[in-house]
Order: sequence, then structure tokens, then C-alpha cells
Amino acid sequence: MQADDDVAYAPAGEVEQFCRDVFVAAGADEATADAATKAMMHGSRLGVDSHGVRLLDHYIAAISGGRVNGHPDMRISQSFGAVASLDADHGHGALAAYRAMDRAMELAETCGIGAVSIRNSSHFGAAGAYALHASQHGYIGLAFCNSDSFVRLHDGAMRFHGTNPISFAAPVSGQPPWLFDMATSAIPYNRVKLYQSLGRELPDGVASDANGKDIKDPALVEMLAPLGGEFGFKGAGLAGLVEILSAVLSGMQLSFDLLPMNGPDFATPRGLGAFVMAMKPGAFVPDDVFEAGMRRYLEVLRSSPAREGSKVMAPGDREWLVAEERDRQGIPLDPATQDAFARLAQRYGLTSPV
Amino acid sequence: MQADDDVAYAPAGEVEQFCRDVFVAAGADEATADAATKAMMHGSRLGVDSHGVRLLDHYIAAISGGRVNGHPDMRISQSFGAVASLDADHGHGALAAYRAMDRAMELAETCGIGAVSIRNSSHFGAAGAYALHASQHGYIGLAFCNSDSFVRLHDGAMRFHGTNPISFAAPVSGQPPWLFDMATSAIPYNRVKLYQSLGRELPDGVASDANGKDIKDPALVEMLAPLGGEFGFKGAGLAGLVEILSAVLSGMQLSFDLLPMNGPDFATPRGLGAFVMAMKPGAFVPDDVFEAGMRRYLEVLRSSPAREGSKVMAPGDREWLVAEERDRQGIPLDPATQDAFARLAQRYGLTSPV
Repeated sequence: MQADDDVAYAPAGEVEQFCRDVFVAAGADEATADAATKAMMHGSRLGVDSHGVRLLDHYIAAISGGRVNGHPDMRISQSFGAVASLDADHGHGALAAYRAMDRAMELAETCGIGAVSIRNSSHFGAAGAYALHASQHGYIGLAFCNSDSFVRLHDGAMRFHGTNPISFAAPVSGQPPWLFDMATSAIPYNRVKLYQSLGRELPDGVASDANGKDIKDPALVEMLAPLGGEFGFKGAGLAGLVEILSAVLSGMQLSFDLLPMNGPDFATPRGLGAFVMAMKPGAFVPDDVFEAGMRRYLEVLRSSPAREGSKVMAPGDREWLVAEERDRQGIPLDPATQDAFARLAQRYGLTSPV
Repeated sequence: MQADDDVAYAPAGEVEQFCRDVFVAAGADEATADAATKAMMHGSRLGVDSHGVRLLDHYIAAISGGRVNGHPDMRISQSFGAVASLDADHGHGALAAYRAMDRAMELAETCGIGAVSIRNSSHFGAAGAYALHASQHGYIGLAFCNSDSFVRLHDGAMRFHGTNPISFAAPVSGQPPWLFDMATSAIPYNRVKLYQSLGRELPDGVASDANGKDIKDPALVEMLAPLGGEFGFKGAGLAGLVEILSAVLSGMQLSFDLLPMNGPDFATPRGLGAFVMAMKPGAFVPDDVFEAGMRRYLEVLRSSPAREGSKVMAPGDREWLVAEERDRQGIPLDPATQDAFARLAQRYGLTSPV
């Protein structure tokens, strides 16, 4: 971050404990507090600050307002072979996604693959948290979610898709997983807010005004551009893939029909869908063949020549480095998050980590 | 195409019959001739000319040289619950992919989802052909394949990934399917060859020289850029997802280990992998809910406001329009393809459709 003077650092353990305590103080059950905190800490430890603990304030507003059910009765509402539907009872999206991925892994253990569609859920944070969860248990994991309509179509001038992330993780024996998590927009919307909080200009061709024309001032952004610039039909198509898997296949709200994440209504459940999948490598190919393939792929990648002034990294490599650094240096908290932590600490009689 | 003077048109039925006859004359079995022709005609009818009948000459060289087995004994070599591995016996990639998708649909019928890893295969053409095949039978279809190393990493200066396509299709009741097929490179390599044949310059930021620096002359291209420009880590990550599913999960060759598609060796099988998946919407959500969701999604998309001078289309819409036009006007054949057709006609005592 450029505006380093405004950023405060706090030990990861203290930030984590604070988030958990705030959730419980706000009336959430232990499972919700654990899952939501784990997902936010995934973002804050790995450098995905747009989906890190800056979301705490938002999540507490959603639970306090009644939009998100802090004591959900999440159930598998439908099962068929290797697939299932999880009804999240309007609980926190992170709890729903971890639960759904647990079921997907059980299905993958017996069927080679498992896919779980999530109904009646809410914002789940960083999709990569759930793909990573699967890969840490030896499975290939995929996670998708649609979200507030904020991204134009390739030739469009309307907020149409959400930033609709795609995440994929694969286990690598003896190494951290291969971990990939991308928004199908040119940038995530949370990054627009972060840049605005930090007083930074946006890069070219990532966000647009109400006519779909690209602009750079984060305060004036009316919609994001789909990934791909001149080839934005690819980003828009990928967003559509996510929309179909997350919303259509769950019978939930399409992005443009969702109540806005940021209110003013914090009382009505938003009816978000999501979709997770796990695959057992050994069901397709002997484990040692899969492991040798992943190792060779990464070995050649990491030793391949770079463009001038650059360094080649595998998806996830930057994240593991950031996590190491932050485990030493602490979690950076932007000014808006510091303020929110102070307010929440005061409201619930807790001590903010900054 | 801009160089319209050099393009000749031939009726789709005649082009199709010619391709099939050439395959059989070159010694391929009927199943191979049918599948390879169907896949090429998918490209040529829908406007994906880079993966259309311009590949006939190449495929015949591969069968004549022995690289591709014209009489393969394709078998399911491993089955586990909802997943399977198809050993393609070094046959044509299109036959392998159609067969694998047929099995994936059978698995989806009983398990809600089916995934099939393809081993010992060869170039399969347009990935969209196989996703479309599933959607035409009422399933959500996905197809992936790695290919000759030709795309640099985001910060890389080496041919690393193939153009590694992602395709996805979903059935829409009473309408053509939602059909999406993208290369994870900024453009497909076959388009570089097509532009070269037509004497056109490449757009900005899609292809690079040996140092990974972007250039516009198709004749000087040493590698392609990954999708995303400044955000090329996304295109590179998606290519990695395809690489892991297609090559690692099948125990087949990584893109950078593949023998080159364009020879000089046309005798040695290349050991290509691929990956297909089918999902049964009704296993996740009642069919009428899925159908209503797809219809609403497409209705809002097609009636949404466009950027100035543009028109909003769903993935596949352009392709269906092109197919209608070509069914009337004929299949356009570029000069190199016309020459190849003439050579093949002479060699096998057939009549070229142009």
C-alpha cells in the first residue's frame, strides 16, 4: 500500500481473536464466529485485504440487522449421487461454504468428485478460502459465488454481473497448495473501496462511469469492467459461468436481482447462492503420478525465464510469502478498518488490537 | 475477414462430406471420420475458423504419419463412482472427447455429475464442440484441454502453457444453449496463423517476441500473451487450472513437454490429455427453477443497455447468427485451406468443394 503512514499493524493472533469475540458478542454462534473469522483471516494473512478483516464491520451489521442468521440450522436439503444442495438458513456465507466443501470432500472420497450447490446463503468473502480448504485435505477444490451486480458486460453499460470469483486449488505434496483465486471483473470492487480509502487512482480500463466509459477516480466508479480489456467478452463469459453455477443451479438470486450488499436494508436475507466442488486426484490417476505431475509443473514454472525486471511465480506463491511476512510483521489495517474496530470494541466492551 | 477477395465459399454439406471422405480415404474408421468432421464443422459453421476445416490437412498428416491412430480401441481404463478415465489409444482427440462426454453424461444421469479424464489422446479442435454436445442433451457441459506450449506466463519470457481452452455450455429451454469457449491466451494461436495467411496485423498486447515483449507482426510471434493484459496473472492462472485438469490429472504430457503439433515428427503419438465434465441441473434444483433462471438471466442480458456503438450479446449468440448466415452463404475457406483441399482431393481422387 502506498499510504503506509495511515496503515496500522496488529499481530494476526490478536486480530483473529478480536474478530471472533466480536462475532460472539454480536450474538453469533461459535460455528459462525469460527468460520467467518477463518475466512477473513485467509484474506488478511494472504494479502487479499479487500476480503480480509475490513469485512468485520459489514458482517456485524448484517448479523445485528437480522439479514444474516447468527444461529443457522444448515442442512443438506437434497442429495443425489455425487451432488447435494445445502440450505444455509440465511447464515453466514463462510460457514455455508466450509460446510458445503466438507460435504463435497466426503462425496469425492466415495465418488471421485463431489459438487454442492448452496442456497439461502450470504457473502462468503474470498472464494480461495474454500478451494484452499479442500486442497489442504488432499482434494482439488473449486469455489464460485455470484455477488452484487457491479460489472458491465463486454459491450454493456449496466451493472450486470457481480465480480463473480473463480477459485481453484490443488494439493502439492510437500509444498503449499497451488492456489488461484480471481475476480472475473478486471479488479474486485472491494479494491475500489480500498483505493478510495487510501486516496489512490485506479489503473486504466478497469472501471467505468454510468455509460460504460472507463474512468480512474475510485469515487466516481459506477461499474467495473470485465476481465480482458479488448477481449472483455472472456471476462464476461467467465462471470456468466459463475452466475449459472452459483445462482441458476441453486435457484437463488441473479446478481442484478440481489438486494445491495451495503444496504440500506440490513434486515432482509439476500438469498445468495454459491457452488463448490472437490475432486479426488487418486480417482483419476495413481497418486504418485499426480504428485509427480504437479511437482514437475511447478519446478519448470518457478525456474522459467522472466520478462525484464520481473519474477515468475506460481499462483499462491505471492500469497505464501505475504503470509510469512504478516505472521512476523502483523496484519495491516487501513484507516476505515481501524475506526470500525474502535467502534466495535467500544460497543461490545472489547479491546481493539490497534 | 478483411481479405474477402481471397476467401472462397462452399456449401456446408459439401465441405462436411469432403472432410469425411478424406478421413476415410486416409484410412480412418467411420467413427473417427464422423467425430473429427463434426468437431471441425462446429468451428467452421459457428465462425471459429481457427478450429474449423482448416485443420483437415493437419489431421490427415497426423493420421497418415501414424501419430494419430485411425482405428483406435478407446476404452474406459478406470472407473470410480462418478468419475472415469478414458484411454483414447492415440486416436483422434475429437472422437475421444465425444466418447468421454457421452460417459460423463451417463455418470451425470446416475450421480448428478460426471467427470472423465482423457489419456493418450490428440488435438481435439474447438473445446466448445464437447460442451455444446452435453448441453444439447440437457446437461451443463465443461471441456478443457492443454496444448502446445505457446503462451508466456504473466511475468514470463518462455513458451509455457498452451492456449488451454475453457468451454462451458448450459441448456436453455426452447432456445439454443448458452455456449462459451475461450482460449486462456489473449488470442488463439491458430488465429495468428490465420492473420498471417490473410496479411493482417495483430491487436496490441496479445503476442510477444522471444523476450516476452509484445509485437504486432504475426510472422514474428514467438509466444502469445496470457489473457488479461496488465492482469495477465489471471489468464495464466486459468491456463494453469486447465493444465492441471487436462495433463496432471490424466498423467499426460505438460504443455512444455509435448512434441510440437506442427511436426516435423508426425509419427510419434503426442500423449495429450483432456478433461470433460457434465452436470444434470435437475440433480441440484427442480428443472423448472433452473429453466426459469436461465431464461431470466438471458432476457435481462439481451435487453440490457449497450455502450455507445455496441450491442450486447450472450455467449453463443454471435455463433448462432454466424451459423445461420453460413448455412445460407457457405463456409468461408482461406487461401491456405483451399490449396490443402485441392491437394487432398487430388491425392485421394475426390472432388474439392471449392
